[in-house]
This record gives sequence, structure tokens and C-alpha cells, in this order.
Amino acid sequence: MVPSRGSERIEAFSDGVFAIAITLLVLEIRVPETEAGGRLLDVLPQIVPSVIAYATSFIVIGAFWTNHHETFRYIERSDTTFLALNVLYLMCIAFIPFSAALLARYLGRPGDDTVAMVAYTTVLILCSITFNGLWWYASAHERLTDASVSREAIKRHTRWVRAGLLLSIPAIVLAFVSVPLVIALYATVFLVYFLPRVGQLKAKPHQGERRAGRS
Amino acid sequence: MVPSRGSERIEAFSDGVFAIAITLLVLEIRVPETEAGGRLLDVLPQIVPSVIAYATSFIVIGAFWTNHHETFRYIERSDTTFLALNVLYLMCIAFIPFSAALLARYLGRPGDDTVAMVAYTTVLILCSITFNGLWWYASAHERLTDASVSREAIKRHTRWVRAGLLLSIPAIVLAFVSVPLVIALYATVFLVYFLPRVGQLKAKPHQGERRAGRS
Amino acid sequence: MVPSRGSERIEAFSDGVFAIAITLLVLEIRVPETEAGGRLLDVLPQIVPSVIAYATSFIVIGAFWTNHHETFRYIERSDTTFLALNVLYLMCIAFIPFSAALLARYLGRPGDDTVAMVAYTTVLILCSITFNGLWWYASAHERLTDASVSREAIKRHTRWVRAGLLLSIPAIVLAFVSVPLVIALYATVFLVYFLPRVGQLKAKPHQGERRAGRS
Amino acid sequence: MVPSRGSERIEAFSDGVFAIAITLLVLEIRVPETEAGGRLLDVLPQIVPSVIAYATSFIVIGAFWTNHHETFRYIERSDTTFLALNVLYLMCIAFIPFSAALLARYLGRPGDDTVAMVAYTTVLILCSITFNGLWWYASAHERLTDASVSREAIKRHTRWVRAGLLLSIPAIVLAFVSVPLVIALYATVFLVYFLPRVGQLKAKPHQGERRAGRS
Repeated sequence: MVPSRGSERIEAFSDGVFAIAITLLVLEIRVPETEAGGRLLDVLPQIVPSVIAYATSFIVIGAFWTNHHETFRYIERSDTTFLALNVLYLMCIAFIPFSAALLARYLGRPGDDTVAMVAYTTVLILCSITFNGLWWYASAHERLTDASVSREAIKRHTRWVRAGLLLSIPAIVLAFVSVPLVIALYATVFLVYFLPRVGQLKAKPHQGERRAGRS
Repeated sequence: MVPSRGSERIEAFSDGVFAIAITLLVLEIRVPETEAGGRLLDVLPQIVPSVIAYATSFIVIGAFWTNHHETFRYIERSDTTFLALNVLYLMCIAFIPFSAALLARYLGRPGDDTVAMVAYTTVLILCSITFNGLWWYASAHERLTDASVSREAIKRHTRWVRAGLLLSIPAIVLAFVSVPLVIALYATVFLVYFLPRVGQLKAKPHQGERRAGRS
Repeated sequence: MVPSRGSERIEAFSDGVFAIAITLLVLEIRVPETEAGGRLLDVLPQIVPSVIAYATSFIVIGAFWTNHHETFRYIERSDTTFLALNVLYLMCIAFIPFSAALLARYLGRPGDDTVAMVAYTTVLILCSITFNGLWWYASAHERLTDASVSREAIKRHTRWVRAGLLLSIPAIVLAFVSVPLVIALYATVFLVYFLPRVGQLKAKPHQGERRAGRS
Repeated sequence: MVPSRGSERIEAFSDGVFAIAITLLVLEIRVPETEAGGRLLDVLPQIVPSVIAYATSFIVIGAFWTNHHETFRYIERSDTTFLALNVLYLMCIAFIPFSAALLARYLGRPGDDTVAMVAYTTVLILCSITFNGLWWYASAHERLTDASVSREAIKRHTRWVRAGLLLSIPAIVLAFVSVPLVIALYATVFLVYFLPRVGQLKAKPHQGERRAGRS
């Protein structure tokens, strides 16, 4: 019919949304105001909750972006349903600056901080659910995936994408126990996430594994 | 004269505007403030109108982006008038975050919600009108379209682009009857929009149809 | 030394700044608030000055982007000084959302509207001056221009870039006479700008002119 | 395993964050309000501190972008750790609009301006530290660098990246002496930064140097 363009422009659009959502996080940090005769040094510590929410959310969106980036290495084509699922996924991602601002506002207020953290984690779970839907749609029956990638690699990636979703369940439970623990959990996941994949990816792509993929 | 670059940079610029407009929608959702002694859980439901306006507008801008994306698959060249028409179209798209904020502010206030919804729908109609102008300019006499695309495919796309405009007329009429119904209409259009095209697009491009296109 | 990458990434970065600056314009339009018992329909006209400033600035930034886009068709290489000049140019472009907000705030207040319009036009003149510097640096001694483009085409483009600067002088003078006239001038320039180039560009690039270019 | 895509999408994502952070700087400049009966011309000079913070930060982010851009000319591959380090670096870059707003707010208030400038410079030092980490990871054992680039060129680039970090130490010391001097220092560095590299880069890439690189 008309020339198909693969997935480049979806990636460019998604990268745009990720880049904007991650950079808008900074707008949530307000310049502290001194009272009459007060000094900046005395009110500057007020930004600490905002900076924690900023750093956590930056890492979280960065990890989602990395996952999206990794996933599109497996995808070769797109169709309109895939575009729609990607829009739903981005709708959840672009909501994070709001939930980060909510968290920053209510961190340190007992009771309210639990509510804010449950709301925050719920948004992340919605991101994971829509992302799993996106990958499921693309990979089922190898609908949109790259034919040169082995079935084994696709199954491995499916487990990886599902693990991201399963990891968000403890986070929402933990929010009722201790909000700082949830933040520590996100920081740990960030480290754990990036360490095991180093071994897998730092070598150049194994041509052998690829060639043998579909045999 | 000078090397022509086709339409890549217009697409990149347009994608940027779409991605920013869609992500700025989140700024319209304000963190709710508790009164003295109040709890976050009691004021959190205040964000519901904003979330409805956010989700509706995200889907609407996402659908416009998808349409723009589809349309540029047919376009091969550009000229300065086409750039200008695209700027006028993007001026309407980039206005949506304001009309979404207006809608969020006045949803649930009888009378005012109708005014806000009529304003919101008017902006969408302006988007559709300028988009029709853009496509009309590009496709008339095959001015900027890809020569390898069949006349039949171009006519089909013209009907599709026009259908988008015609669908916005009932929306503005419906706004005077019931604002929630308009929102339900947008959600329905989103689903209907993405379903029929699945059959059309999920298969790989029909080489046959393409080759036979201009014969 | 290291692989040169031409000007693609500068264009991508510049497109990003243009797209963000043009889309941020919408943040300057505030949702109007009704007084107790008032109706939205009565306060909605308050947004008119903001909408005028929005539309004017959108067209202006769109025209600057088009010019930048046209100019990079002539440019093949880049160096660090060129990057720095481009940053200075973008610093002026990214300032436009502020001057647009200033104009929107003071439109219709006699005296203050002249001050706001002179400030607005001064920013546009700074955009034109830095853009002329950028093009002068790139084109002098064919430093960064595409060798396949004829000297005649480069001279013609130089006159075009310079014309943009000369046109902003009457605008600043006119601001002291009548602010609405300046806005009308910008709208006229937009139309005039896009019309004469249609004839020049709507045909496919003349291979003949190009081949003969440097002979 | 799966097709590797090099570093293009990291660059696109990073360019997005740079472009947004640099353009968001303008939001820090507030439209000045006149008091009853006052004139815009009298309150317009209030924006001077904001404009100084805007221009300084625009140049600073522009210089960081240029450095990032230069560095990626040496980089050929990426892995997940590299993505994570890049996210940490961007987290510091995207924080600059906040520190610029803080500086703009407290410029001209003795004592507070020193605190604001030390905070501002600390953010820049964090940018430099994470950027050095990013380059160290990529270049150590030629992990991700382009094999066709000579070891000499990589060493030279390492010295360049390190120089950027060392230059920020005097800035933080100077903040305790005089805030305007720090701003003058940043302006000087901008000029000095862009001048020496002109000679190095304005010529076309030396094919000879490149070919001989690894011999």
C-alpha cells in the first residue's frame, strides 16, 4: 500500500515524551522563600523532600526509558493498535511528574506520606501494566518483532518485562510500612537493574547466537 | 538549487511539538492542599476532573499525532507553504493544553462546563480544519505525495482525514446536551479509530497493491 | 582525527529548542477565574490579549524555525564556534516565551503596551542579529557550506537572511505609533514570507541549476 | 543476540533533555507587575537578575551539550551501565533550571547570593563529576569507543573532559569572594572554551591522522 516506516518515528515521539517528563520533574522543586530578615541558608533544607522525589523519579523514568529502548531493539514493525497501546503507556509515564510533586509535597507528614506513596506506586504499576500489554501485543505470534531475533531471546525479554511488573507489588505493600523503605527499594532496584545486564551486554553482539537463532 | 531534504525535519519538529504538548498536559493537574488538620485522602478526589481532562486530551493529541504520522507516510517532499500550513496546524495542537486546563477547571459546574466543553471542541475542530488544509495542499495534483502510492490509496486517506473533521461536529452539538457524553464520545472514537485499522495494517505492506498502484 | 558528523545533531538540538519554545507559549495563557456567582462566559474574553500574543509568537517562532531549516540545507559541516553561535541564537529564540508573556500582560494598557512591544521587538531583532552572525560565519569563504551549492544561491540566501533583519527595524519604530499595527505587520510578513517562495520551491529541485552551480 | 543500535537513541534522548532543560530556563523569568498607577518601564529593570541567571545558565548548559556532543563522536557502542551513568549525568543537568531560579531569586542580596552561587556551582560540579564518570567508563580499555580513533586523540579528550572539572573548583571558591566575579568567570570560560578549538576543528577531519591512528 504505502511505504511502511518501521518504528523509528514512534521511538522518536516516545523519546520526546520521556525526555520532557523527566525534565519537567525539576519544576516541582520550588525556590524557598525567606521570611522577613531570614536567611536563605536556614530555609534551603526545605527542598530536601522535593530533591528526594526528583532523584527517585528521575531514576524511575530513566529506567522505564531504558526498558523501552531495549524493547524496541526487538521490534521491527508497527501498526495502529501498537501506536494506541504506546500512547496509553506514555499517558502513564507522563503522569509521573504529578505523582512526584504529590510525593514531594507530603513526604514527612505521617499518614499523608503513605497515601502519597501509594498513589505514586500505583502510577508506576500502571506504567508496568501498560508496558507489559505493549510488549505482549508486539511479541505474541511474533507479530511485530524482528524475525532475526531468536525465540529464546524473546522469551528471555518477556520474563524481564514481567519481572519489572512483579517488583512493583512489594513496593505498594511496603508503602504502608515505611515510606523511606520504598525509596530505598527503588534505589536498590536501580543498582540491581543495571548490574546484571552489564555482563550480558558489554560484549559486542554475538553473531553466532543470532545466526543460530531461528534454526 | 540546494539539496532538498524531503519531510524528515518537519516530522521531527512536529513530533517535538506533539510530544511537548501532550506532556505539558500534566502541569494542569495541581497538587491538592489540605486545610489545617485535614488529611490528603480527603482532598485527593479533587483531582478527578483534572485527571479526566488529562486522559481525554492525551488520547486526543495521541490520535492527532497518529494521524499526522500516518499522513506523512504518503508525503515525499515539502515546500515553504506546506511548512507554513504545518505551523498553523501545530498552533492549534499546542493550544490543547490550555483548553484542557479550562475544561478541568470548570468540569462539574453546570453551565460553565458547557462553555468550557464548547471551547475545547472548537479547538479540536480548528485542529481538524487545519489538518485537512495541510493534506489537501499536499495531495492536490499529487503536489507533495509519494509517486509510488496509488491514487486509490490517496483517495482513501482523503476520506479518512475528512471523516475526522466530520466527527467533531456532533461533539460540539452534544456539548450543549451533556458534557460527560462528549467525553464518552471521545473515548469511543479512540477505540473505534484504532480497531478498524488493525485489519488494514497488521499485515505487512502489500507489495502487490503498491506495484500495481499507478498502472 | 575523529569521525565528523556534519550538522545533524545541531539541527536535532535546535529543533528541540524551537519545538519547546513554541509549545511553552501556551503556558502564558491563564485559565480565567470567575468571581463569586459569575459565569465563565463573562470572563472568557479576558484571554484575548494572551491569544493574540500566542498566535503572533507562534507564527514568529515558526518563521524563524523555517529560516533555520532552510539555512541548514546549505550547511554541510560544523565546528565549535558554529555551535557557540548557534547557542547564542537559540538563547534569543528561547527568550520569546517571556517577551510574549510580557506583551500579553500589558496589551491594551496605553503606554505600557508600547514598552512591552518595544521589548518584544528588541528580542526579535536580537534573534535576527545572531542568526545573521551564524550564517555569516558559516558562509564566509564557504567555510561550512555545501560545496555543491552554487555561489549565486549562497548570495541569494545571504540577501534573504539580511532582509529578515532589515524588516525588524520598521517594527520597532511602528511600536511607538500603534501596537496593533505591529501585530498586523507580523501577520503580513508571515503571508508575504510564505508566498514568494512557493514559486521558487514547489517544483522539484532543478538538477540543471545545481550541476551548473560551481562552473 | 539482538541487533545493537549503537548510541543514536541515547544521543536523541540526551539532546531532548538538554533542549528542554535549556528552554525551561525562561520560565524562571517572571513578568513584573506594576503597583496601582505604576508604569511598566519602572518595574521592567526587576528582571535583570533573572536575565543574568538565564544567560549564564543557557551558556553553561550549551557548553555541557557541546561537550556531550563532542564526546559522542568518540563513542561507538553503548551498554546498560553506560545508559545508567548517562541518566545520572542528565539528572544533574536537568537540575540546573532550579539552581538558576534560586540564583535569580537571591542575586543582589548580600550573604544569600553567596549561598545561592555555591549551590549553583555545586550542581555544575556534580554535572562535571558524572560526566567524567561517563567518559571514564566509556574510554577505559576502549570499552565503548570507536576503534578507528587513535589512542592519542582519546587521551587528549580525557584531558579536556578533566579540565572542565578542574575549572569548576575555582568557581566555588570565588563564590565566597564575589558573586559577579563568578559570573564573569563563566562568561570568560565560554569564550576561552570556544576559541582554542576553532583551529583544531575548522579544517576538515585529517584523514591522515585518522588512518595512522592505531598503527
